[in-house]
Amino acid sequence: MLFFTQCFGAVLDLIHLRFQHYKAKRVFSAAGQLVCVVNPTHSLKYAPTLCAAAQTSTEQGILPPCHHHEAVHDPQLVPCVCPLFSCPWEGHLEVVVSHLRQTHHINILQGAEIVFLATDMHLPAPTDWIIMHSCLGHQFLLVLRKQEKYEGHPQFFATMMLIGTPTQADNFTYRLELNRNQRRLKWEATPRSVLECVDSVISDGDCLVLNTSLAQLFSDNGSLAIGIAITTSKVHNSKAEM
Amino acid sequence: MLFFTQCFGAVLDLIHLRFQHYKAKRVFSAAGQLVCVVNPTHSLKYAPTLCAAAQTSTEQGILPPCHHHEAVHDPQLVPCVCPLFSCPWEGHLEVVVSHLRQTHHINILQGAEIVFLATDMHLPAPTDWIIMHSCLGHQFLLVLRKQEKYEGHPQFFATMMLIGTPTQADNFTYRLELNRNQRRLKWEATPRSVLECVDSVISDGDCLVLNTSLAQLFSDNGSLAIGIAITTSKVHNSKAEM
Repeated sequence: MLFFTQCFGAVLDLIHLRFQHYKAKRVFSAAGQLVCVVNPTHSLKYAPTLCAAAQTSTEQGILPPCHHHEAVHDPQLVPCVCPLFSCPWEGHLEVVVSHLRQTHHINILQGAEIVFLATDMHLPAPTDWIIMHSCLGHQFLLVLRKQEKYEGHPQFFATMMLIGTPTQADNFTYRLELNRNQRRLKWEATPRSVLECVDSVISDGDCLVLNTSLAQLFSDNGSLAIGIAITTSKVHNSKAEM
Repeated sequence: MLFFTQCFGAVLDLIHLRFQHYKAKRVFSAAGQLVCVVNPTHSLKYAPTLCAAAQTSTEQGILPPCHHHEAVHDPQLVPCVCPLFSCPWEGHLEVVVSHLRQTHHINILQGAEIVFLATDMHLPAPTDWIIMHSCLGHQFLLVLRKQEKYEGHPQFFATMMLIGTPTQADNFTYRLELNRNQRRLKWEATPRSVLECVDSVISDGDCLVLNTSLAQLFSDNGSLAIGIAITTSKVHNSKAEM
């Protein structure tokens, strides 16, 4: 009987996933974009941990890189950049992607333009939605976080970080776009390097920020679709600002 | 001596204004857009007043129109829509613009694309920056408001409202764009009618919302430049969403 119930549950899950994927495909089919359904993960790392100093010094402009481990002996080694877990791993920047895939099971997607479909937006904060995005010969980490900066008022923060150095990150521009209910919100910026802590980017507020009511307006049945595009920023830099 | 001091102060103010205008012109000159310097006004109306019910029922989706006066006897008459003052005036929709200009000294600008340069962003909340914008045969009211939804955490809210009926408003799309420091934020939506209260649009959060740190990133020496464009929304409606 238990076996039967579990099987039935699994089938229901599959139908639900398929339905969500179908809906996202329908919305974005015109653009022929790849849709990736991203399920939420309750962050086990957040709050009283690593970047506490960065968290408290909000609204101070650019913060120094947030080092996850106090003693990194080899300057060539970087700590694990997974925003979800406090992980003792450290290694070379070139193997961060395979560590994130293998140890933290973070998916990786190919394509210049993709749609990130975050499900279950109603889940309580802190919650993260994370994928990696492979594009233009580099890998990027996309983080959507639901967090209560002000108690009782959860907000959504979305940012894209290059799995590479800050100098490499300066060569790119990423765009996040929400489009629903005759409203459109676009955020364009230079990605930060994962060597800077994602927590400090979010506590700075230097990312796409949505309050709950806007997130609801842009959501469809509890899922938020974010269109993502990455370009090289040569064009962006050569243009005069606006 | 007092006369001399006052004259000197006025000259300094003029130089400061000229300098700000010159800077804005320099930034936006490439686009050939009209720059309008908008000074802040400390709102005398805000907080325990008219739309108190709307303020408390935040995050409920679309609120009913907020009536400024409890007893409007002639349904053809509308109350004063000035977001700054509690004004006993009421009149026909066609004369709202002249009332706002003459009684509340709100400037009106012509042009399809203009730049709204809000000065003195550091002033404490509640503060409003307001102009009217004449475009495509209609007049729009642009409101930028600094407000503390959460105590000690001021945010900026920007929205555009049609001085006309909700049905007329549905024919337009407005765009607000911030562009500085290699970041770009764009908000596109259908304007609401001024017959709906601006306070409820802002308490809904159904507008461009900026926290203080983002506002600082987009500001130049305490002034925030917002590029504004209005289009008819026929194209917008015929396109599939994204």
